[in-house]
Amino acid sequence: MNDKKYMEFALTIARQVSGQTSPNPLVGAVIVKDGEIVGFGAHLKASEAHAEVNALNMAGDKANGATIYVTLEPCSHYGKTAPCADLLINSGIKRAVIACVDPNEKVSGSGIEKLRQAGIQVEVGVLEKEAKNLNKAFFHYIKMKTPYITIKSAVSLDGKTATSTGESKWITCEEARLDVHRYRHEHDAILVGVNTVIKDNPSLTTRLPQGGINPVRIILDTMLRTPVGAKVITDQEAETWIIVGENVNEQKKQIFSSKPYVKVIQLQQEQINIDDVLRILGSKGVMSLWVEGGAEVNASFLESRHINQIITYIAPTLIGGKEAPTSFSGNGFQSMEERLLLEIKNVEKIGTDIKIISGLREEESGVYGDC
Amino acid sequence: MNDKKYMEFALTIARQVSGQTSPNPLVGAVIVKDGEIVGFGAHLKASEAHAEVNALNMAGDKANGATIYVTLEPCSHYGKTAPCADLLINSGIKRAVIACVDPNEKVSGSGIEKLRQAGIQVEVGVLEKEAKNLNKAFFHYIKMKTPYITIKSAVSLDGKTATSTGESKWITCEEARLDVHRYRHEHDAILVGVNTVIKDNPSLTTRLPQGGINPVRIILDTMLRTPVGAKVITDQEAETWIIVGENVNEQKKQIFSSKPYVKVIQLQQEQINIDDVLRILGSKGVMSLWVEGGAEVNASFLESRHINQIITYIAPTLIGGKEAPTSFSGNGFQSMEERLLLEIKNVEKIGTDIKIISGLREEESGVYGDC
Repeated sequence: MNDKKYMEFALTIARQVSGQTSPNPLVGAVIVKDGEIVGFGAHLKASEAHAEVNALNMAGDKANGATIYVTLEPCSHYGKTAPCADLLINSGIKRAVIACVDPNEKVSGSGIEKLRQAGIQVEVGVLEKEAKNLNKAFFHYIKMKTPYITIKSAVSLDGKTATSTGESKWITCEEARLDVHRYRHEHDAILVGVNTVIKDNPSLTTRLPQGGINPVRIILDTMLRTPVGAKVITDQEAETWIIVGENVNEQKKQIFSSKPYVKVIQLQQEQINIDDVLRILGSKGVMSLWVEGGAEVNASFLESRHINQIITYIAPTLIGGKEAPTSFSGNGFQSMEERLLLEIKNVEKIGTDIKIISGLREEESGVYGDC
Repeated sequence: MNDKKYMEFALTIARQVSGQTSPNPLVGAVIVKDGEIVGFGAHLKASEAHAEVNALNMAGDKANGATIYVTLEPCSHYGKTAPCADLLINSGIKRAVIACVDPNEKVSGSGIEKLRQAGIQVEVGVLEKEAKNLNKAFFHYIKMKTPYITIKSAVSLDGKTATSTGESKWITCEEARLDVHRYRHEHDAILVGVNTVIKDNPSLTTRLPQGGINPVRIILDTMLRTPVGAKVITDQEAETWIIVGENVNEQKKQIFSSKPYVKVIQLQQEQINIDDVLRILGSKGVMSLWVEGGAEVNASFLESRHINQIITYIAPTLIGGKEAPTSFSGNGFQSMEERLLLEIKNVEKIGTDIKIISGLREEESGVYGDC
């Protein structure tokens, strides 16, 4: 079917700009007239033109009588740009093929309604699943008001993240480590526990050959033990938010709060609760969260069942050791019945390693239901 | 190239009878005349006809002037059957394409030599790597006089084999568990530690819908703690060899030794040493060993660096828990430098799980060198 072919192209366009449109979703549009592609475009950056606008600009007069393929329902409200639905109507578009409805309450069906009322033939649902998958963090966030959470795990074949003495550099191959930076680029925020900051002093920035966007750095640090000289505090490469419990030294808190790019977020409980963290991050507009552990932090997310996706890099090596650390520690689940059931979304070789993408089963994800 | 095509067919034939030819290797043969396949066969069972014989029988007179493709060098010595080299010569075969030289000292090049001296055009090395891979246990055994060792591991995405309370049924899916029985069928022996016998009371037999061969069951049991009523002792489904240290109760030893199908093998040391175990198994003709743990037994193989291959089944589930068991415990390696480096040989989805085959890197395996 040609509809699928053109929609696939629209999805491909949208996919290219992954990581640069937040808080807006990835959207691609393709305009076809008499079997020829006359325009296409993507939404490149928040506050800039929507995908439909870029495609219409390319098509010019040829949009008149044409079909537009767009991966997300055109907007119908006046936001930072004029409503795309109106633009499509004015341009003379005859038919609109839409992959999925916009979950945003301000749109959600009204864009489609507007097009239909103007006499445009509208079809919804072509490659819907793929389109929702493309913006799964966006869909999740709109529905839940909390970030879509992806855990990163890098282990040996026997599930170890380090030797029993704590040596961990490097278990996975260079290609896998580079891939991690691609994910940092694509996420609004990166989260680690304070022990990782103390032990590894990571910068948690995006370091890709072609450059990239740094995520906001979030440190879970109940007692505010982050060293003042840590890279995440001093390098000013990105914002750093330290989430602390209620029992922290006020003076120390002031020291951190006075630093540029650093924010201390204090909870009203002694212990850090993942639900609270997610609610706060959601309220600050963090739609996608990339969690790089360590094992205790990962376990907190697991035990509170706040995991949408896990990316596992497995290196073909065996380390052994009852005491060697694994990717999830904590108490864990006592019975098999409680375990978190996921499904494999993708498996591929990456360099000498394997990369497995697993996520919540579709029916449990909340992303693929009616939006 | 047609040579590769026919050799691929010969390999395919040989592969079908995996598990039923031990202690002989898998061998397939295809006879081609004037572009038509006129005969093919495999070696089906020790003491029965070699692949070449079966293929020649099918070809009949058409073998005269034909080309034979055979995955292993034809034998040149009188064993349980007449030498295949002589049969090929007498049948009028004009050209012989051979995937790899027989590593067996009694053959190793002399079959090829005999064919050449009889004026047959011989080519060696077509799909050699694939042919050696098909019989990697055989090649390893001939060279090392000890079994080729494959470890089986079934884990969650976070590397756990059970919850922290020890619950492990079932982490992996039914297809993965069935696949394990296929491996049992293909191996000469299966090995577990006594704790697995005590805890799970497994039968360690091959249970495939179509039937299958049971491997010899080997229990590592330093102090002879195997329960007299254990399935592996009472069911008489296959031989059970209990390997014990020197300090075991003589009377208890007699009890076990008197049972049908049960053998107690006593080492001359207090502790069980994997090198000794492998030497003994090798001397008893065990060419391939399938190790099903537990974690301490796996660690013994790892720490003594006696692992040729590991089959890892990974279920898309997270269990968590610092105390939850993993597939390799023991002391493990202290530094990353010591870790056992393998390479990924194959990755596939199996049911809802993933199956990863990893093995020694080619240069370290000893199988792919000159034989």
